[in-house]
Amino acid sequence: MSSRRSTGNVSELVEKARTGDARSVARLISLVEDASPLLREVMAGLAPYAGKAHVVGLTGSPGVGKSTSTAALVKALRDQDMRVGVLAVDPSSPFSGGALLGDRVRMQDHALDKDVYIRSMASRGHLGGLSWATPQALRVLDAAGCDVILIETVGVGQSEVEIAAMADTTMVLLAPGMGDGIQAAKAGILEIGDLYVINKADRDGADQVRRELRGMLALADRPEGAWRPEIVKTVASKAEGVDDVVAAIERHREHLESSGELDRRRLRRARDEIEAIAVTALREQWRGVHENAALDELAAEVVAGDSDPYAAADLLLESLEA
Amino acid sequence: MSSRRSTGNVSELVEKARTGDARSVARLISLVEDASPLLREVMAGLAPYAGKAHVVGLTGSPGVGKSTSTAALVKALRDQDMRVGVLAVDPSSPFSGGALLGDRVRMQDHALDKDVYIRSMASRGHLGGLSWATPQALRVLDAAGCDVILIETVGVGQSEVEIAAMADTTMVLLAPGMGDGIQAAKAGILEIGDLYVINKADRDGADQVRRELRGMLALADRPEGAWRPEIVKTVASKAEGVDDVVAAIERHREHLESSGELDRRRLRRARDEIEAIAVTALREQWRGVHENAALDELAAEVVAGDSDPYAAADLLLESLEA
Repeated sequence: MSSRRSTGNVSELVEKARTGDARSVARLISLVEDASPLLREVMAGLAPYAGKAHVVGLTGSPGVGKSTSTAALVKALRDQDMRVGVLAVDPSSPFSGGALLGDRVRMQDHALDKDVYIRSMASRGHLGGLSWATPQALRVLDAAGCDVILIETVGVGQSEVEIAAMADTTMVLLAPGMGDGIQAAKAGILEIGDLYVINKADRDGADQVRRELRGMLALADRPEGAWRPEIVKTVASKAEGVDDVVAAIERHREHLESSGELDRRRLRRARDEIEAIAVTALREQWRGVHENAALDELAAEVVAGDSDPYAAADLLLESLEA
Repeated sequence: MSSRRSTGNVSELVEKARTGDARSVARLISLVEDASPLLREVMAGLAPYAGKAHVVGLTGSPGVGKSTSTAALVKALRDQDMRVGVLAVDPSSPFSGGALLGDRVRMQDHALDKDVYIRSMASRGHLGGLSWATPQALRVLDAAGCDVILIETVGVGQSEVEIAAMADTTMVLLAPGMGDGIQAAKAGILEIGDLYVINKADRDGADQVRRELRGMLALADRPEGAWRPEIVKTVASKAEGVDDVVAAIERHREHLESSGELDRRRLRRARDEIEAIAVTALREQWRGVHENAALDELAAEVVAGDSDPYAAADLLLESLEA
């Protein structure tokens, strides 16, 4: 392993990844996922090449058919000769993930296609959410020349809102019989979708879901010229409507570009990423086990009622500036 | 309003809240929720009195009956003569919340009971999650002498995992027909529950949900002496099984206390709270519109490919220590 720890090999990996070498892509993602000592070097090496891929987030409640939809979308995008990356994020589980990954099998259709990169990523910690390495893995796929990168979360929870913050186009999947419109609104999904896909549209109730969704989306107060979320019906298991989804993604991409929103979103994403890295570094410093952990002492004072969280936060920040 | 901005009045409010004056409790929560200039004074005033309440988080997918269960639990706890606080957190919505709050009406049974405080809280922002003021509102209810505080989220999303981090006892509600066991595991709920309540247990499939849940919980690798999550069946709309829930919460509370886990959780919660306040202060500084926003410049460099997020984060942190 030690022979890989040199600048020469990182730039070689980056170079190979750019020409479409799947093993180099995989190795780069592993390096960032394992927080390898080479992480910073990898990120610096990728910097000049990233920023071209269109990132599509797929989210929705369990059971709506996210994995099937992802597989169908990959096929439709490949038919248009695009290079496609897939990051499938599993919510963390105290159990071995193996048994739960059965629905990944479908993706094996694409396993031998060199213009499709598929990567399952674990999630961050015991409370769910995307892996901290997701933005970095995105950058690898982006620099490797993917035209479209799909991020799919299986499950509800924090991942969903994180994806919306990270994607250019956020696709919310729904299905008939998964809860009524008011419940959907409660779940907050009406705020994050650029595109709503009603999957399993051959089932009873699909039209009603569309009607309710339309009604609720119509209530939203959107500024002049803003994107109006589209609704598309699919039967992903039969590939029905999937081309419509691709067309809607393309319309949204064009809107983002012409409105200047794409640049704004990418700036925002870079800000979020920088900030998250900086905050993580600070947290490690504050919670450092080997150092004299200031945060622990302050927390004990708050629990004892000798201080309050605001006064404690002030002291924590003062310790930083000292 | 300006007459309220004095130390005298904050300590008077705190004093009245401690004697059970509902209006003072409400005013204190409003002060923290509105991020009033008095916020820090309020938090300092509450510090000596907080830390006694048992915090119970209620979470689960839409449609499992969270509001009904909350109302039934409040009644059962009141029957035991406990002082009860309820924080109902709505996921944010671009729409006025009014129409969606219909199910709150049931709680009006308790509206005239002076030992029940019920507060609906908006959620943080357009991406959902608990209000930033939730921990502070908890402190108000705690200092006001609540024996039990229920935090209920309507909806899925970030709120759920945040509640688990904040609660002493996390209760996950399930119902028959809301998705199978594997889907439940995907949703990550198997990691956060101390107590699983299968509501609507008079419906077909309740026993199957219990069987699957039991099977999956049995797979978890728990250390010796760790709490084993309990499963309780209820029909909250008929108050059936609700006393069993109260008993299970009490068993969990006793376990937390005797194992030392309660102290650990409270320390962890204080750490999280201090850290969140400090990070928020830093973010405001980094994103400051009126200052020369360093983060914006760094983000533009990353988007242009002239820098990478790690190098940018280093610069951001250096600017802080300067």
